[in-house]
Amino acid sequence: MDERKGLLRELLSKKPADVAEVLAELSDGQAAEVIHRLFLRGAATDALAEMDPDESAGVVEKLDRHEASTILSRMNPDDAVDLLDELPDEVQQELLSRLSREDAQVLTNLLAYPPDSAGGLMSPEVVPLSLSMTAQEAIDFLRQRQEEAETVYYAYAVDDAQKLLGVLSLRDIALAPPDRSLHDLVVRDAVSVPVDADAESVARLFDKYGYFALPVVDAEHRLLGVITVDDVIDVMRNEATEDIYGLASVPTEEGLDTSWWSSFRLRLPWLYARLATALAAAFVVGIFEQTIAKAVALAVIMGVVAGQGGSAGMQTVTIITRGMALGELDRKKGWRLLAKEVALAIVNGVLIGATVGAITYLWKGEILLGVVVSVAMLLNMIIAAIGGVVIPVAVRGLGRDPSHISGIFLTTITDVVGFGLLFLIARLLLPAIR
Amino acid sequence: MDERKGLLRELLSKKPADVAEVLAELSDGQAAEVIHRLFLRGAATDALAEMDPDESAGVVEKLDRHEASTILSRMNPDDAVDLLDELPDEVQQELLSRLSREDAQVLTNLLAYPPDSAGGLMSPEVVPLSLSMTAQEAIDFLRQRQEEAETVYYAYAVDDAQKLLGVLSLRDIALAPPDRSLHDLVVRDAVSVPVDADAESVARLFDKYGYFALPVVDAEHRLLGVITVDDVIDVMRNEATEDIYGLASVPTEEGLDTSWWSSFRLRLPWLYARLATALAAAFVVGIFEQTIAKAVALAVIMGVVAGQGGSAGMQTVTIITRGMALGELDRKKGWRLLAKEVALAIVNGVLIGATVGAITYLWKGEILLGVVVSVAMLLNMIIAAIGGVVIPVAVRGLGRDPSHISGIFLTTITDVVGFGLLFLIARLLLPAIR
Repeated sequence: MDERKGLLRELLSKKPADVAEVLAELSDGQAAEVIHRLFLRGAATDALAEMDPDESAGVVEKLDRHEASTILSRMNPDDAVDLLDELPDEVQQELLSRLSREDAQVLTNLLAYPPDSAGGLMSPEVVPLSLSMTAQEAIDFLRQRQEEAETVYYAYAVDDAQKLLGVLSLRDIALAPPDRSLHDLVVRDAVSVPVDADAESVARLFDKYGYFALPVVDAEHRLLGVITVDDVIDVMRNEATEDIYGLASVPTEEGLDTSWWSSFRLRLPWLYARLATALAAAFVVGIFEQTIAKAVALAVIMGVVAGQGGSAGMQTVTIITRGMALGELDRKKGWRLLAKEVALAIVNGVLIGATVGAITYLWKGEILLGVVVSVAMLLNMIIAAIGGVVIPVAVRGLGRDPSHISGIFLTTITDVVGFGLLFLIARLLLPAIR
Repeated sequence: MDERKGLLRELLSKKPADVAEVLAELSDGQAAEVIHRLFLRGAATDALAEMDPDESAGVVEKLDRHEASTILSRMNPDDAVDLLDELPDEVQQELLSRLSREDAQVLTNLLAYPPDSAGGLMSPEVVPLSLSMTAQEAIDFLRQRQEEAETVYYAYAVDDAQKLLGVLSLRDIALAPPDRSLHDLVVRDAVSVPVDADAESVARLFDKYGYFALPVVDAEHRLLGVITVDDVIDVMRNEATEDIYGLASVPTEEGLDTSWWSSFRLRLPWLYARLATALAAAFVVGIFEQTIAKAVALAVIMGVVAGQGGSAGMQTVTIITRGMALGELDRKKGWRLLAKEVALAIVNGVLIGATVGAITYLWKGEILLGVVVSVAMLLNMIIAAIGGVVIPVAVRGLGRDPSHISGIFLTTITDVVGFGLLFLIARLLLPAIR
C-alpha cells in the first residue's frame, strides 16, 4: 500500500510523456488502476494522450465507462479520435453516447476521416481571426478563447464564408505595435493541406517547409482544422519503421513488445511466402539435376551467382523505394535511373564476374567453367538492375507500397534467373555436360 | 534572355523551399548564376538555407567570395554552419575572414561542435529573459530584439550566471494580463539538452515530448542556444534513410541524384564485401563436393535451408536494430527477447522444417532425406534467431551502428551454418553417402 502511494507521488511529479512510458510497461489492468488514481488527482488525461493509441485503448477498455468518457472529453480531439479508432465498436459507441452532444458531434465528424489522412491527423480546435482586427484586438480575442485552440503559435485568417485567407504568426501579432491591422501582418499565400491528403504527403510538406503547423482546408478552401508537427513526427517515425520492416519481410504490426503468440502469427505467413519463393528457385535447380551430377562445381558456385544478383538488385530496390517514400522520384527520373542502373550493372558485373570467373578457374583449372560463371554473373546483375527499377515502379503502379513487397519479387527473380542462366550457359559451353 | 527573366520572376514569387527545389535540379554553375541574380534582388539567403548543405556548398563555391560571405552573414547561424561544414577548408577560412569579427566568432564556436551533436544542431540566437520582468516588459524586450532570435515561440529564463531557470511560452506571455510577473508563467522543470548529446538522442526527446524547440545547455546548465523541431526532422529522415540503406548494404552517401561515377565507387566495395561472404559459403559447399556427387538432391534443397535461416534471422535483426534506433531496447529486454526469438525459432523451425521435409520426401520418396532436411532447417533457424539478437547487440557493443553491418554477418552465418549442417547431418544419416 505504501509502495503504491510512493509510485503515485512519483508519477504526479513527472511529465505526461514520462508517465506514459511507465504505464506502457504495466499490464492493461495495472495501468487502468494507476490511471484511476491519477484521474482522482486530475492528472490522467495528458498521460493517456501521450501513450500510443493501440496501448492506451487497452487501458481505457479496463476503465470505468464514466471515468473513460470524462477523460475523453478533456483530451484534444485529435488525440481522442486516435484512441477511439483503436477501441472495439461497442465501447466506442458507448463512450460517445456519454459525451455532451457537441463533443460527440466533433469526434464523430473526425472519425469519418481515414486515420492516415490529413483529416485524421488534424485538430479542429482552431480559432479563426478576421482581418478587420488590430493586433491588440486579436490578442484580446485569443486570450478569451485560448482554451479552444490546440496551438495558437499560428492563427488563421478567414473570410465570412470561413474560407482561408492567410496565416498569422502569434509572434508577429504579439510583437507588432498594438494598433497595427492584421491586414499588414497576414501572409496570404499560405501553404495549406487538403483534408483528404494522405499522411505521407502531409509529412513531406512539413519536412520541406519546416513549419510547426499547417491549416487543413476542404475542397472549397474552408478552414477545417490544424495539423501540428508533433503529430507528423509520429507519422514519419511509423512510416520509416514500416519501410524498414517491409524490406526485411517483417510484419508492420510488430515491435519489441509484441507478445510471443502475436509475433508467431504475424511472422509465419511471411516465412511461408519466402519459402514459396525459395522452392521456386529450388525447382529450377531440380530441373538441372543431371547437369549438376556431371559438373558438381556448378552446385558450389551457383549460390554466388544468384546471391550477388540479389545483393546488387536490393541496392537498387532500396534506393528507388526510399526515393519514392521521400517523394523524390518523378517519371522523368525513372528512365534516367533505369539507364544509370543498367550501366552500373554492366561495369560492376564485368568486374565481379571476372573476379568470380578467375577464382573458379584457379580452383578447378577449367577456363571454360570460369567463362560460364563470369557470363552468368554479368547477365544476372543486368537482370537484377532492371528488376530493381521496374519492380518498385510496377508495385507502386498497382497501388501497393513498393518498399513492402519489391524485395521478395526481386530476390525470387535473381535466384531463378541466376540458377537458370548458369546451368543453361553451362550446357551450351561445357563439353563435359553435352 | 527573356526566358531567363521569366524564370527569375517566377522564382521571386515562390517560397524559399520551392526555389531550393528548382536550384537542386540545376548544375552548380547554373544554380550559382541564379543565386547571383536572386542576390541582387535580396532573395538569395533563404533559398540557399533551404537547400541540402551538401548541394548548396557546391553552389557557394562557384559564387563570388564577397557575395558568398554576405549571404552567409544573413543566414541563421545554424544553417550557415551546416553549409560551412561542407566547404573545403580554404574556402571556409576565406569566407570566415570576410565576416565581421563578431559573426566569425559565433560561427567558429559553432563549427567546433560535431555536426551530429546538439551543439551542431543548435542556433545560438536565443534571447534570454529575466524573471523579474512582467509579461508586458517581456513583450517589449522581445520586440526590440526580435531580429536576434531564431524562434521566439518559446523564451528562456536565466539567472545572472546565464544558468537556465525555465521555459516560457510566447503564447502564455502574450495572452497573460500585461502586468503578470514572469515568475507566474515560467515552467521550471524544463526539458533541456546537453550540448554534447548526439543528434539521435535529441531526436528521441522531440519525438517523446512533442515540443517545437528545446534549450541547449553546457555542463554548468548555462543556456547556449536552442534546437528547433525542423532541424530534428532532417535528422530523423536522414537516420531512417541510413538504417534502411544499412540493412541492404547500400552506402549511406547515396541518393537518387548521385552521379553514375559516385554510385559506382560507393557501391563496389559493398558488392565485394558481399562477394567475400558468398565465397565463404561456397567454400563450405566445396568441402562437400563428394557428398553432393552422391546425392544431388542435397544441392537442390541446400539453398532453401540456408535461405529460410537468412529470412527468419533478418526478421529478428530488423526488429532488434529498429528497437535500438528508437531507443526502446534496454539490457533487461535483451535477455527476454533472446528467449522469445529462440522459442519462436523452435516452433517456426518445426513447422517450416516439416513442410520442406515433406516436400522433399514427396519429390524423392526417401523418408531419411526428408528427415535430414527437416532437422537441418530447424537447427539453422535456431542459430539464426540467436545470431539475430546477439549480432546487433555485439555490433553496438563495439561502438558501430548495428543496422549497418548486422545483416551481412547474419546471412554469412546462416549460409555457412545452413550448408554445413545439411551436409554433416546427411553424412550421418544417409546410407547412400556413407
